Amino acid sequence: MSRRGLAPRISWPTPFTRRRVKIFYREISIDTVATIVNDLVTCGALPISVAMHAAVGESSWFADANRMEALVAGWAEGCRQAGAVWGGGETPTLPGIVKEEAIVLAGSAIGKVEPKSQRITGDVKDGDKIIFLASSGVQTNGLSLCRLIASKLLQGYQTPIGHGDSRTYGEALLAPSVIYVKFVAECQNAGIKLNYVSHVTGHGWRKLMRLDEPFVYEITNPGEEPALFKFLREAGPIELREAYATFNQGVGFAAYVSPANAEAALAAAKASGYKAWLAGTVKKAGARKAVVIPSLGIEFDGSTLQVR
Amino acid sequence: MSRRGLAPRISWPTPFTRRRVKIFYREISIDTVATIVNDLVTCGALPISVAMHAAVGESSWFADANRMEALVAGWAEGCRQAGAVWGGGETPTLPGIVKEEAIVLAGSAIGKVEPKSQRITGDVKDGDKIIFLASSGVQTNGLSLCRLIASKLLQGYQTPIGHGDSRTYGEALLAPSVIYVKFVAECQNAGIKLNYVSHVTGHGWRKLMRLDEPFVYEITNPGEEPALFKFLREAGPIELREAYATFNQGVGFAAYVSPANAEAALAAAKASGYKAWLAGTVKKAGARKAVVIPSLGIEFDGSTLQVR
Repeated sequence: MSRRGLAPRISWPTPFTRRRVKIFYREISIDTVATIVNDLVTCGALPISVAMHAAVGESSWFADANRMEALVAGWAEGCRQAGAVWGGGETPTLPGIVKEEAIVLAGSAIGKVEPKSQRITGDVKDGDKIIFLASSGVQTNGLSLCRLIASKLLQGYQTPIGHGDSRTYGEALLAPSVIYVKFVAECQNAGIKLNYVSHVTGHGWRKLMRLDEPFVYEITNPGEEPALFKFLREAGPIELREAYATFNQGVGFAAYVSPANAEAALAAAKASGYKAWLAGTVKKAGARKAVVIPSLGIEFDGSTLQVR
Repeated sequence: MSRRGLAPRISWPTPFTRRRVKIFYREISIDTVATIVNDLVTCGALPISVAMHAAVGESSWFADANRMEALVAGWAEGCRQAGAVWGGGETPTLPGIVKEEAIVLAGSAIGKVEPKSQRITGDVKDGDKIIFLASSGVQTNGLSLCRLIASKLLQGYQTPIGHGDSRTYGEALLAPSVIYVKFVAECQNAGIKLNYVSHVTGHGWRKLMRLDEPFVYEITNPGEEPALFKFLREAGPIELREAYATFNQGVGFAAYVSPANAEAALAAAKASGYKAWLAGTVKKAGARKAVVIPSLGIEFDGSTLQVR
């Protein structure tokens, strides 16, 4: 479905109800599917079906045709990008539990590792190359901090982010998340072994050292910091080190491959439509576990990452 | 796990925080798993894995150890009753979306029809017998109406329901839902073909005529109406017909089998621990579609059921 297909097709009874409000539920719906399938694909499973769970505080939520159409179009678009079908779902109305005007949008997916040898197990070795795939913005992590920052801005979400980017803060935050399924599928099709992949979500770049085995992840090419993150650091203010520990800073997905596969993996990412680059190298340094970014003077020791 | 295993094992720092409040999150957790797996099993798929999605309004929700222990024990118990593993989940904190003190508890399950011939397709025939499996109370449907009724009662949820049942209204409402997976599994093991099964949830007994093909479902033995529903009808007040159109009235699951299989299916239900009885017969009557309960003088025409 093209963006043109999203123009409201249902007419309102009276002209004065046509508020000129920009609706972002398409983007939010894509974000939700992205969060689910990007998780799933890290084990090498390609999504088959994604179900929606949309809980609202009042049933009238679903009566706004523009909003509903955007929500539905976004979920369908997310499924399409993930190569999955939309496997139904539930739309409970929960007064007294979900706030009026709000929606708790969630879902679940099933996928398949096929054949089993495509399972991504995390067998990273000394010298492996790290490939970064770009994010589209904060995606779905660090948003509580972003909301806090919005509450302190005079223009709130209407504040222009600047740094050569013409969008407002709200628009930039609501850019739909990137779905990385096609990259994994393309590598599987091309026979490129992914030793490990990690999406960069909560805990920012510290997430790059999620594996138990101690390695030093040296990022020699962190890429250009997108305008939104520069804006966030100034508006917070947030220290550079803190930004890299919290936000994705322009990197949504990392793949770890043997040096012999690095060029092919990079080509697979580009062929499937992603902005990607060779970012660094995995190094064995005794028992040391860390992410180091020499050009930014940042080091995260293994102890700074506590994930379940 | 026995009920004894649920006694709080974590001691509180000071005695005065030991409020003597009865916690029902174990029951609510079982309800949630039940709602998911009872849906899944209607196609003949036995659950493999059930994932939890617990969204709260404030992270302190999870800090109440008694409540959390009950929630976790209930989910585990539900999975156990469903023969499934607990497949992880998510626990997002969503301030401003979920109300303070509230939780949106949801989940999803995957299951497998094995072999494919066990798929329940709805090939009901004239003369098929209808077997009812008892519910434990309202289970998870009609609760908005139950909450409305509670708000009108002087003693609210503390009102005794009477009719020979010593529980309060709140206790009766919060009885954990029955999980019907074992019945379906037992029938599959015993080679008893289930032509169709339906759980009785929203739309009460009208749900018995969910199949597209027109049949008259004659219920000659509706069973004894449980005390809770007698109480609800008086407290509402709710007409008898309306009660059967809205609540499960003591029946949580219906199985449709050939007359030759009726006794065996009944025995399978009892062998797997369910209260069950032979309730009625499916009859072909031209294009007529209806549920009729002669002993109660109730008939629901096909047009009264509109489900998606």
